[in-house]
Amino acid sequence: MEIGLVGLGKMGGNMRERLRRAGHTVVGYDRNPEVSDVESLAAMVDKLPSPAVVWVMVPAGDPTRSTIGELKELLAEGDLVVDGGNSKYTDDALNAASLAEKGIGFVDCGVSGGVWGLENGYALMYGGSEQDAAKVMPAFEALKPADTPDGLVHCGPKPGAGHFAKMVHNGIEYAMMQAYAEGWELLDKTEMVENVPEVFASWRTGTVVRSWLLDLLVDQLRADEHLDAIKGYADDSGEGRWTVEAAIEHAVPMPAISASLFARFVSRQEDDHAMKAISAMRNGFGGHAIKKD
Amino acid sequence: MEIGLVGLGKMGGNMRERLRRAGHTVVGYDRNPEVSDVESLAAMVDKLPSPAVVWVMVPAGDPTRSTIGELKELLAEGDLVVDGGNSKYTDDALNAASLAEKGIGFVDCGVSGGVWGLENGYALMYGGSEQDAAKVMPAFEALKPADTPDGLVHCGPKPGAGHFAKMVHNGIEYAMMQAYAEGWELLDKTEMVENVPEVFASWRTGTVVRSWLLDLLVDQLRADEHLDAIKGYADDSGEGRWTVEAAIEHAVPMPAISASLFARFVSRQEDDHAMKAISAMRNGFGGHAIKKD
Amino acid sequence: MEIGLVGLGKMGGNMRERLRRAGHTVVGYDRNPEVSDVESLAAMVDKLPSPAVVWVMVPAGDPTRSTIGELKELLAEGDLVVDGGNSKYTDDALNAASLAEKGIGFVDCGVSGGVWGLENGYALMYGGSEQDAAKVMPAFEALKPADTPDGLVHCGPKPGAGHFAKMVHNGIEYAMMQAYAEGWELLDKTEMVENVPEVFASWRTGTVVRSWLLDLLVDQLRADEHLDAIKGYADDSGEGRWTVEAAIEHAVPMPAISASLFARFVSRQEDDHAMKAISAMRNGFGGHAIKKD
Amino acid sequence: MEIGLVGLGKMGGNMRERLRRAGHTVVGYDRNPEVSDVESLAAMVDKLPSPAVVWVMVPAGDPTRSTIGELKELLAEGDLVVDGGNSKYTDDALNAASLAEKGIGFVDCGVSGGVWGLENGYALMYGGSEQDAAKVMPAFEALKPADTPDGLVHCGPKPGAGHFAKMVHNGIEYAMMQAYAEGWELLDKTEMVENVPEVFASWRTGTVVRSWLLDLLVDQLRADEHLDAIKGYADDSGEGRWTVEAAIEHAVPMPAISASLFARFVSRQEDDHAMKAISAMRNGFGGHAIKKD
Repeated sequence: MEIGLVGLGKMGGNMRERLRRAGHTVVGYDRNPEVSDVESLAAMVDKLPSPAVVWVMVPAGDPTRSTIGELKELLAEGDLVVDGGNSKYTDDALNAASLAEKGIGFVDCGVSGGVWGLENGYALMYGGSEQDAAKVMPAFEALKPADTPDGLVHCGPKPGAGHFAKMVHNGIEYAMMQAYAEGWELLDKTEMVENVPEVFASWRTGTVVRSWLLDLLVDQLRADEHLDAIKGYADDSGEGRWTVEAAIEHAVPMPAISASLFARFVSRQEDDHAMKAISAMRNGFGGHAIKKD
Repeated sequence: MEIGLVGLGKMGGNMRERLRRAGHTVVGYDRNPEVSDVESLAAMVDKLPSPAVVWVMVPAGDPTRSTIGELKELLAEGDLVVDGGNSKYTDDALNAASLAEKGIGFVDCGVSGGVWGLENGYALMYGGSEQDAAKVMPAFEALKPADTPDGLVHCGPKPGAGHFAKMVHNGIEYAMMQAYAEGWELLDKTEMVENVPEVFASWRTGTVVRSWLLDLLVDQLRADEHLDAIKGYADDSGEGRWTVEAAIEHAVPMPAISASLFARFVSRQEDDHAMKAISAMRNGFGGHAIKKD
Repeated sequence: MEIGLVGLGKMGGNMRERLRRAGHTVVGYDRNPEVSDVESLAAMVDKLPSPAVVWVMVPAGDPTRSTIGELKELLAEGDLVVDGGNSKYTDDALNAASLAEKGIGFVDCGVSGGVWGLENGYALMYGGSEQDAAKVMPAFEALKPADTPDGLVHCGPKPGAGHFAKMVHNGIEYAMMQAYAEGWELLDKTEMVENVPEVFASWRTGTVVRSWLLDLLVDQLRADEHLDAIKGYADDSGEGRWTVEAAIEHAVPMPAISASLFARFVSRQEDDHAMKAISAMRNGFGGHAIKKD
Repeated sequence: MEIGLVGLGKMGGNMRERLRRAGHTVVGYDRNPEVSDVESLAAMVDKLPSPAVVWVMVPAGDPTRSTIGELKELLAEGDLVVDGGNSKYTDDALNAASLAEKGIGFVDCGVSGGVWGLENGYALMYGGSEQDAAKVMPAFEALKPADTPDGLVHCGPKPGAGHFAKMVHNGIEYAMMQAYAEGWELLDKTEMVENVPEVFASWRTGTVVRSWLLDLLVDQLRADEHLDAIKGYADDSGEGRWTVEAAIEHAVPMPAISASLFARFVSRQEDDHAMKAISAMRNGFGGHAIKKD
């Protein structure tokens, strides 16, 4: 198929390549002229046959919103926009409704795969109507992992269904990583077990905790046993926050995922803010020494 | 090799079978005469060549302690006891010291694999001296997964090193399961995503959260979409508690694993005990209605 | 002063009484004619001198929004609306902006005190301009606790500042109650300490944990030592959720308050939903028995 | 009464003073000759009438154990030892049994009050027999807060009952402090509310969160609005850890208290250890940048 692709960064660039390897024609647009195939969004749309299919792969929030706003001007009834970025699921209903005013279809698609997707394929979770999805299905089939029914799922007709599923996926990911990290810290800080990296490596076969994340962690531990070169600092990209917010909205207890999110917040503080107040109170009742900043 | 095996339950019985398939001679003893090869521990030891190797696979705590106590009477200098049960790591030093009084060696070995171990092999993490481990190595090689260096690791010379590693493995397992469970509850309780089992199934390839636990959960969800037939109740078998206790002892923060442990505790309460006090206080200050038991 | 008061429930009814005891003239309106002083909102406004001050004390969300919408129609430039309900702080900016279109002032005010406020006074935290606050100050002075500078605070000029402070107050309250509840459960479930109610009672003087919540809990424990008559079930009224959401938005770690919120969620589940998935996975890898629902 | 007092530090020194003000005769011993009344433990015991009562107020663990061991040598049948330190409750049964071999009685007593105890009195929670307690009752009456039945409670006959109650008290204290600290961090970091110290001050009357800890925090916030001079670092003194351990042993969920404990652990880490592993995994799957240490 022929498809427009907006956003050719780390993810989008690799996806263009994987689509082309599968024989599809990709017209890629990026603000960076060095990687862009065309000069403008309008030029990209001009090159597409009708009905046009445009895959948006730009940062969530304002960049995605404004890109879809521009595409609404450029596209026509029967065309399709796919939002493959990390948009918040609540944005999708707004974007779908806006595009529907001109008869333009909308599919939201959560994409997992990171830097490994080019070779191994991307896991795709999409929301929207069957009819809209059919228009982009050849691209889905090319992007997903080969030789498996896994890696591609229709999450339902509601706009945002795909991003909601991807959001929960990332929430789960937060707590899985935290699980390994807590266990590793305990093993690394006690002297009971020697050769912690090889203990983790041994877990890759036959155990209950075997996983792809474990494989990745083993590679890193073998290269730097105590991870001395890595600062204990973790960003978060939004999906973890939204997962906990959605849980709160629906009265779903989420102690482990929220703990994982808060652990990241703490890791980014120069000084542990709440502990200032703890220290102040301890000084107040017990005369416990205060460390000066 | 020839090896004695004490405890022929779900785990021990399958391990006897896997060892025999590999050509080893196993003399199994169990209190249940229907599965036991011999009438008594003494009869088992009598059948073993010298130096004797006896693998203990009975419940942790008193059963293991008393079994090792009896073996100390029956065995001789140069023999070896392997504790393959789920013993607490602090028990191992005591057992090793007791056996050492008679010159009997000791290896502790954490075993993972569950009901799948017979076919796929068991992951083994062991602690003790290289010399002691060498005596049981043929059995280790038969029990571990085939065709991989994974699944067998020497965790160090300290008695308990193997059980400590297995304990942390299980602690990690608690939080990984909690991660999937929290994500599933959110997906299952909101109406954004349809066909939740297939969403989980799709994650098995190409995503960051792919793992063996995910594979298992998919099988269960496909059989019972909302897990309606399963009560929300989870036991814990000790390792999760010990992991958090060890973390506390070493001042290692463990928010996600402890949250996972506490979630199991709550699931076993007929009535949520702490919430009685919350309800009482809310009634006290705000006149909020109390639900009567 | 003369003041209109909309909503004469448990809180509003007592506040009317406290204002009247202080010599103020209150025109109260409630949908329930048995407690209402007038037949309608319009009748209430008619009875007020110009500039009119109307205090809204109805449930947060739609009831407050629609009440303020009606008042916008009835009031005139220079009048003032005070929202003393438990509105979400983000609603206040919208209400303030809407009223400002007609030149009507707006003050948001978080009110604490519950059923004790009539006798002891209400703690008031308000947001808005000094000029607007001055119009309702006599009522503030009458409602607040007597003989103390505490219990009344201007949280800042932003609409929502008062409700934001009250929201955080309630978030803190959640974790304080959870603290006592966890400690009580441990004491009540172990047999180390006898006469747990008197232990709590003894803490009311001289200890670090003395507080009003403790006083309330002691009364309840003395009446029902194990709280046998109270179901372990706790509602939540919104502020706890909003506190955690605001924390997430601002990357503030909030492990204890969120844990307290999630504990309430769990207490309201007939069956522990997430634990179904835990039980399913445990059955999958270890053959652990599943409890049937 | 006449009483021996071992340990004249911050707590013991003030307790000696409060006992003397009440007319009691205190023979104090401390390793520091500048504060000690006598040269040795033996000299202290020599000065006491028979039956002798000795109050031990030294650090928990080895110092308390060895002091009680020495007293066992010096005291005689019918004498009494009171452990008023922060001993772990499991130590008390051992100490009681050891002293009982010589017919020496034992009472364990948790003491709360900190630097305020001298003037306001100490809250005392004690365990042991009524007969033993009667021997030290005059000192209890002098130490406890005046003019209230609160502040003194018999927690039961089991050795350790008093320290167990004090331990839980401190666990509750951890989560109460964390509650205020989390709420303060949110208020301090957002710009919605101005004058955060005065908001906290206003809560001291009429609100649900009023408490002594709040009073203390207000004093500190008024002196240093953002606590800029205080490092976000909090020690823990054992009771919090033991509380969570006891909870785990008895399958009592303790999410808020454990979260409070873990928050302190994190605050003491130079680099957030677990987050190194999180960062390593994120780099592995997504190419997310690693911060170098």
